[in-house]
Amino acid sequence: MPAQRSAVRGQLVWFRDDPFLTDPGHAFVHVDDGLLICEDGLVTAAGDYGELRERIPAGVEPVHYPEHVITPGFIDTHVHYVQTGIIAAFGSQLIDWLNHYTFVEEQRFADAAYAREAAAVFCDELLRNGTTTALTFCAVYPQSVDALFEETTRRNMRMAAGKVLMDRNAPDALLDTARTGYEDSKALLERWHGTGRNLYAITPRFAPTSTPEQLEAAGTLRREHPGALLHTHVSENTGEISWVRSLFPDRRGYLDVYDHYGLLGPGAVLAHGVHLTASERARCAETDTAIAHCPTSNLFLGSGLFHVHDAKDPRRPLRVGLGTDIGAGTSFSLLATMNEAYKVAELSNYPLDSVKAFYLATLGGAQAMGIDDRVGSLEPGHEADFVVLDPRATPLLARRTARTESIEELLFVLAVMGDDRTVRATYVAGERAHDRDTAAV
Amino acid sequence: MPAQRSAVRGQLVWFRDDPFLTDPGHAFVHVDDGLLICEDGLVTAAGDYGELRERIPAGVEPVHYPEHVITPGFIDTHVHYVQTGIIAAFGSQLIDWLNHYTFVEEQRFADAAYAREAAAVFCDELLRNGTTTALTFCAVYPQSVDALFEETTRRNMRMAAGKVLMDRNAPDALLDTARTGYEDSKALLERWHGTGRNLYAITPRFAPTSTPEQLEAAGTLRREHPGALLHTHVSENTGEISWVRSLFPDRRGYLDVYDHYGLLGPGAVLAHGVHLTASERARCAETDTAIAHCPTSNLFLGSGLFHVHDAKDPRRPLRVGLGTDIGAGTSFSLLATMNEAYKVAELSNYPLDSVKAFYLATLGGAQAMGIDDRVGSLEPGHEADFVVLDPRATPLLARRTARTESIEELLFVLAVMGDDRTVRATYVAGERAHDRDTAAV
Repeated sequence: MPAQRSAVRGQLVWFRDDPFLTDPGHAFVHVDDGLLICEDGLVTAAGDYGELRERIPAGVEPVHYPEHVITPGFIDTHVHYVQTGIIAAFGSQLIDWLNHYTFVEEQRFADAAYAREAAAVFCDELLRNGTTTALTFCAVYPQSVDALFEETTRRNMRMAAGKVLMDRNAPDALLDTARTGYEDSKALLERWHGTGRNLYAITPRFAPTSTPEQLEAAGTLRREHPGALLHTHVSENTGEISWVRSLFPDRRGYLDVYDHYGLLGPGAVLAHGVHLTASERARCAETDTAIAHCPTSNLFLGSGLFHVHDAKDPRRPLRVGLGTDIGAGTSFSLLATMNEAYKVAELSNYPLDSVKAFYLATLGGAQAMGIDDRVGSLEPGHEADFVVLDPRATPLLARRTARTESIEELLFVLAVMGDDRTVRATYVAGERAHDRDTAAV
Repeated sequence: MPAQRSAVRGQLVWFRDDPFLTDPGHAFVHVDDGLLICEDGLVTAAGDYGELRERIPAGVEPVHYPEHVITPGFIDTHVHYVQTGIIAAFGSQLIDWLNHYTFVEEQRFADAAYAREAAAVFCDELLRNGTTTALTFCAVYPQSVDALFEETTRRNMRMAAGKVLMDRNAPDALLDTARTGYEDSKALLERWHGTGRNLYAITPRFAPTSTPEQLEAAGTLRREHPGALLHTHVSENTGEISWVRSLFPDRRGYLDVYDHYGLLGPGAVLAHGVHLTASERARCAETDTAIAHCPTSNLFLGSGLFHVHDAKDPRRPLRVGLGTDIGAGTSFSLLATMNEAYKVAELSNYPLDSVKAFYLATLGGAQAMGIDDRVGSLEPGHEADFVVLDPRATPLLARRTARTESIEELLFVLAVMGDDRTVRATYVAGERAHDRDTAAV
């Protein structure tokens, strides 16, 4: 089979480092007329078109996206593919919302056909929104994991997912046991982790729905498979936190439950962390445990306001990515998520600039998941997942971006006003996997 | 000239009363297969298709929008048409934002040609988003008002607007004087109020940019023209409130400044009111002074969280409408505004249901402006301004709305997930003024 080769031309934007912690002039890369060359799914060259044009492989015609912005594909560090059908469920905060909507919908994923259809829709929506990697919850049923990974394997997407572990405080039909949860997870992990571009995430839902025995088993699995991710929730809602305290009276707090069972560390992504204490944040920093900031969800469920500048305190910075948290989140778009992250930060008088926001949505997410050597960057050697953003996607956006005076301003306008229409195309492993103008509507 | 006649068929939704204060079963009207008949710009019949089909005028073929939702046109009770060009301006709270962006942009409206082009874009965006009436600030220059009203007259839109009054604390080029502000406003009011469907709003920007003399003159103008509206800002930001206290030490607070100069009362719409005290809210209720709730703006500028349930306290309910507050707001869409209003309410654990949200965006806005006898309703006799919402506007929306089980749930999903694409068509005075599928993109 001949090598896969492609090239695109446009404004390139990516990150070499974390702009919260280093000089943005060093961290942020912008190439005004850039060229990206991809071979066999990897970026082989990224830089100035004039300098690199000689290196375009014979027979390859670069796709030119004039004035468009090409960034690494967006990374959604917290989402539930099995909740795609219940976006915009009215009226509750976290615990009621789980009981009334989520636990009903997730039972449908016992049906593999239902799961397969949902997985296809989910991947379509990710790509339509420029998201090339997600860390997603599945349902408790192994077939819900198989359905997703079959779909992502077919599409060659870099996807991380896992079966939910839940052995208490949920409807019987959704419960596993400490033993079956461990065995099913292990079998799925061995089947899928490293198959294609798939990654397995050990996925206890959250402390209240796992017994100590199940958390213990999750810790065992994590020690046995240190390359796998760990994905759960923490400190989203004050009622939830009180509940955890009552369920685990011997632990010092919510985070300490996970810590006690060996679930923290590199590759562990905890969703929300809205109400983490300063000492809990310090413990996350110390262990390289990451937080997925999910602003549309935190607002929709009234959970509270995550303080990104506290999380990124240079004295003990956390790894932070952005999450849509569909179905409590309200949009698959990481642009919409950046918009809400900006607003949440503004409420504490912290102006989250566009360079930091795009970092969180790309390299920051990859670092949170511990896969920044593979995705989240356009540096040669990285996997060629990227998104092409159209500054003229709507009449109003075209009018506004016509007067931007810097790449930073342009990125900010795209974040605040953008949506799926702003995504002109999404490339996965060097191949166009979504094209706005030819997609079925 | 023959009478203008038209008819549309679809699901009808409107309000007979305020669902915050009365039984929603009484306040909320839903007709599953409805027919709306319009003649000479007015609704002449609204109800069940089967019952009303006999009354379709000869020669009129109803436009059928199967499964679509037809509501009164949205009413934007606070917006700045002259700030359309500066949506998504990065990084400041209110006062800095005014100085850095707004006061620069508004100077461009000294140029009538610039103003005319902006007015056309503004009206296009309103209609694209289903908004048929807005209460908008213009710039200080009379020609910026003429430009807008010329455009709205041509389009036969029910529009309320006024020249900004500002005689201190702004760049010289933007200042009038107490005398010229009064005279220019009076001339504009006499030229435009009641011309076509236009309404004039006496428009002091906010207390800090008007001298006592100018506020006195505004009060005089209001007494001379009691039919005109009054449009200003109040208690948006805590820094602003402190500034007002220092500028008007003899007044009891921010609202009292306006009260003292006779600016409150029916037809007065104060934007924001985020930080109004309980006694200020009581005074607004007592005087029938309305508040424009602008959630996307309050989040974008980090101004704070408006408590709609406090404002609608049945013991002393305020008139409340929704405002986009473009350019500090981030979307022209009242659907997006409802989504953010829901989120802001959730943060205080108040679930703002879809019936209340759509009321705020339609009849509530009309009541806030004191024009509910004319717009904001599909009751016969009202002006035939309405919007046709498409539950299948995007693949994800189609999937989600296919499983809604009530009109309330459908409206909620449209509010949370909707955008300009959801607006299939917008009718002004019985005629289609925007059609999504034929509009230039």
